[in-house]
Amino acid sequence: MAHKTDIEIARAACKKPIRDIGASLGIPEAHLVPYGHDKAKVSADFIRSLGDRPNGKLILVTAVNPTPAGEGKTTTTVGLGDGLNRIGKRAAICIREASLGPCFGMKGGAAGGGFAQVVPMEEMNLHFTGDFHAITAAHNLLAAMIDNHIYWGNALEIDQRRVVWRRVMDMNDRALRDMVTSLGGVANGFPRQTGFDITVASEVMAILCLARDLDDLQRRLGDIIVGYTRDRAPVFCRDIKADGAMTVLLKEAMQPNLVQTLEHTPAFVHGGPFANIAHGCNSVVATTTALKLADYVVTEAGFGADLGAEKFMNIKCRKAGLAPAVVVIVATVRAMKMNGGVAKADLGAEDVAAVTAGCANLGRHIENMSGFGVPVVVAINHFATDTDAEIAALQAYVAHQDSTAILCRHWEKGGAGAEELARRVAEIADAGAADFTPLYPDDMPLFEKIETIAKRIYRADGVQAAPAIRDQLRAWEQAGHGNLPVCMAKTQYSFSTDPALRGAPTGFTVPLREVRLSAGAGFVVAICGEIMTMPGLPRMPAAETIGLNDLGQIEGLF
Amino acid sequence: MAHKTDIEIARAACKKPIRDIGASLGIPEAHLVPYGHDKAKVSADFIRSLGDRPNGKLILVTAVNPTPAGEGKTTTTVGLGDGLNRIGKRAAICIREASLGPCFGMKGGAAGGGFAQVVPMEEMNLHFTGDFHAITAAHNLLAAMIDNHIYWGNALEIDQRRVVWRRVMDMNDRALRDMVTSLGGVANGFPRQTGFDITVASEVMAILCLARDLDDLQRRLGDIIVGYTRDRAPVFCRDIKADGAMTVLLKEAMQPNLVQTLEHTPAFVHGGPFANIAHGCNSVVATTTALKLADYVVTEAGFGADLGAEKFMNIKCRKAGLAPAVVVIVATVRAMKMNGGVAKADLGAEDVAAVTAGCANLGRHIENMSGFGVPVVVAINHFATDTDAEIAALQAYVAHQDSTAILCRHWEKGGAGAEELARRVAEIADAGAADFTPLYPDDMPLFEKIETIAKRIYRADGVQAAPAIRDQLRAWEQAGHGNLPVCMAKTQYSFSTDPALRGAPTGFTVPLREVRLSAGAGFVVAICGEIMTMPGLPRMPAAETIGLNDLGQIEGLF
Repeated sequence: MAHKTDIEIARAACKKPIRDIGASLGIPEAHLVPYGHDKAKVSADFIRSLGDRPNGKLILVTAVNPTPAGEGKTTTTVGLGDGLNRIGKRAAICIREASLGPCFGMKGGAAGGGFAQVVPMEEMNLHFTGDFHAITAAHNLLAAMIDNHIYWGNALEIDQRRVVWRRVMDMNDRALRDMVTSLGGVANGFPRQTGFDITVASEVMAILCLARDLDDLQRRLGDIIVGYTRDRAPVFCRDIKADGAMTVLLKEAMQPNLVQTLEHTPAFVHGGPFANIAHGCNSVVATTTALKLADYVVTEAGFGADLGAEKFMNIKCRKAGLAPAVVVIVATVRAMKMNGGVAKADLGAEDVAAVTAGCANLGRHIENMSGFGVPVVVAINHFATDTDAEIAALQAYVAHQDSTAILCRHWEKGGAGAEELARRVAEIADAGAADFTPLYPDDMPLFEKIETIAKRIYRADGVQAAPAIRDQLRAWEQAGHGNLPVCMAKTQYSFSTDPALRGAPTGFTVPLREVRLSAGAGFVVAICGEIMTMPGLPRMPAAETIGLNDLGQIEGLF
Repeated sequence: MAHKTDIEIARAACKKPIRDIGASLGIPEAHLVPYGHDKAKVSADFIRSLGDRPNGKLILVTAVNPTPAGEGKTTTTVGLGDGLNRIGKRAAICIREASLGPCFGMKGGAAGGGFAQVVPMEEMNLHFTGDFHAITAAHNLLAAMIDNHIYWGNALEIDQRRVVWRRVMDMNDRALRDMVTSLGGVANGFPRQTGFDITVASEVMAILCLARDLDDLQRRLGDIIVGYTRDRAPVFCRDIKADGAMTVLLKEAMQPNLVQTLEHTPAFVHGGPFANIAHGCNSVVATTTALKLADYVVTEAGFGADLGAEKFMNIKCRKAGLAPAVVVIVATVRAMKMNGGVAKADLGAEDVAAVTAGCANLGRHIENMSGFGVPVVVAINHFATDTDAEIAALQAYVAHQDSTAILCRHWEKGGAGAEELARRVAEIADAGAADFTPLYPDDMPLFEKIETIAKRIYRADGVQAAPAIRDQLRAWEQAGHGNLPVCMAKTQYSFSTDPALRGAPTGFTVPLREVRLSAGAGFVVAICGEIMTMPGLPRMPAAETIGLNDLGQIEGLF
């Protein structure tokens, strides 16, 4: 029998009305703001009323370094949530929203896969509940107000060469990366070189995902640095008086979205910051709300554990007062083989030695996560080509690391395929063995924080940085930003900054090319490599084949 | 007792759940797609099922040329709808959606005013149901695909100097009017001068508002001309293969939005094209749906009757097969006085002679509307400063034109203040006296169509146009576009192209500066004056004082 595609499975889903999903979490209908019959937002008033409730257990799903073989982090997050519900636990999942722009480039964008998916898939990959559009509007309102301020006399004395606030669009459009605006004469302002980033790269996105509530949101928006004067004094969003109107634009977007998995597990899908120049996790509001409403909350972080989980711990958990009870690291036999040196074309052939060699990558992630004081379980996301000997080799390696690797078949079987994982995760969470500690204290100097991550997580020999970068970090410390965490931007494909170095490389240094201050989001971005904040479309964009079929269904999006 | 402000009245509104409003129109709950508890879309499937039902009566509300005194066209549309329901008729209203950008410039944007308003006011002025964001995304996807096509080899041989498709944003941002994009080297494409318009100026907006259904939408999107080759052959959106993906992005946006007036009259609020370079009416889908569900549908057109109603008749009604049963022209004593030469500061003093003199403006609109074969009623939107003698003068003038002017107090009293107007309008509609005929036939040459409007509606002596413009029109006729209607873009403040010429000017000609082909929307734009398609923000933008108050309510937006 031919396998069904993700979209066929998603279309065949028997979704429950979203008010039933809300009711299963105890959300009264008046506080569930519907967007269609299968999506809703949870009202801010209701969230405020939850303050005194105890929190459920937080479970982080992360992964080895991504390879072209695919790991299935979201699929495992969904499968584990479904598995927990199947064994009688009250579980919810929290994941990020998808960005619209990339859907028109390469195919893709589904939330999970196989029988471990979140629905409605199409809407989640298109406008969903409009959150990203609201972020785009808020970001660009600030941009318009900056140029308008300069146009009408520039009372704040902003140096037009030092405006750092660009514009955003949720589109892959390379033509907008670099431009000169305000051409055409006096009525259009002062010509200025600037550009657009994709919306998920907006600091407003990172802020929305880290803010506790609307007051905190507005305070953080006000803290955004939009540019500098000629003597390099920062000019804030608050000085431009845009923070109030931006908050109004984000009022609905701040409310977390509720949808469901194919097995009706409640799924909070909210926010989606980049995992390089931002922290790559769903919103704090979604996670804290889910923790009040469910006993177990399964969430994920972007990229591999060296980037995504590190930021989840050091930025999101630290700032939101969260503490994970268990970390699940997703690995696949295929990914281990690629980390062990096998080419993608050769993945079909059994190669136990390569699996074992590649496990060095997994082993380092296990060690790193344990270093945060949180127990680790490995989930082996099963592929049909995996052999028993390969699986046994992976499990033996993990056992040797004092952890457990559990074979999961949620892609094929849904929650039933993740029951064993769910039982083990619940057991560990219930035992309360976790003692979460961030990697570095708030008061460590910024450069030392970067070094600490590079040495302790990446296992680099050190960090190389030009004197100007070190001076910049010291200047920010003097300006009162020294207590911020750092947000590392580097390749996701390697522990090092060289994407070709798989496995567990050593003997490298991390070149720190640039640092940026996201004063509103509350972190310093450390850029170690080429980071693209506005993608382009490929030669044959997926958009060319996207359309409605005769039944009015969307084709070509997946 | 102090008068309540519009926002105070709107906030105090006792809204019915939107499903009750839908039920009052016979829309089953499964076909009402909720956006919150007070907004919904009517499903495309349900609309398709309505095909065989008889149509209700269509009532157009238009106005004299706008003056700074304010006329209250939307307020009257709402009041008349409420009035019809009060006298036992089954009525609905259809109006346009508000644009987000201008809300951050000048204050304003309410839908109606006083006790004749549509709610929820805040959401309608912000993201509403996301239609404009969808239009922005669809428009900009096409722009990205054009530049991407050129980047990857330009197989269609588009002349980069002749790309006519700009980008859009729903923001007042003068810096984006004129720019050079694709700077920064090979990876970013070929530098090109272009710019952004505000979203309501997008041809996609006009298309969405004129398309009958999703098939028609996609066909029209495909017909958009995006640029020309070096030998001036048009390149269509269909050639870029963007029409399918754009349709997918607009799938939800094509479904009309349902909200309610303060008195629970169903209100379809859908689409909002510019009333100069586009036709300025709410969507055809909203109007045709409302006509299937209500016995009387009150709708409005942008600006005064010379622009808005003319296009409503010659573009929207002609193309959608609609025929209005009655035209209501809104006039105020204050507007008549300004048309009679009184300055705004002097409007407080009684001036019967000025009222009578200014009525020349109203008289010409009555004549024009009657020329379409549709009976006319004048609604006097009452202001507290109007004196009995002034009102009597206005009514006497209208009686002399074989029409009736009815004093309305819906702003103060809601539907109760518009009962007399409602009774008269229903009486005329029920009598079936209308015999609608557009002003010109489809097969009239394009330049003659422009001349016909200028002479018969504006009462100009003629149209001045450079030979190149006449050649362009003839070229479009040869290319098969000669049967399109024309969309006049001129000042709304005068019958002429000089905004200072109030009243009923004669002895002028209309200078035709530029023509544009909106092949997807299906009209030729005739530009007679300076038309701004990307507004700027004022020195003190309203955004500076917009924010949430301590109760979490939006302040400063109105």
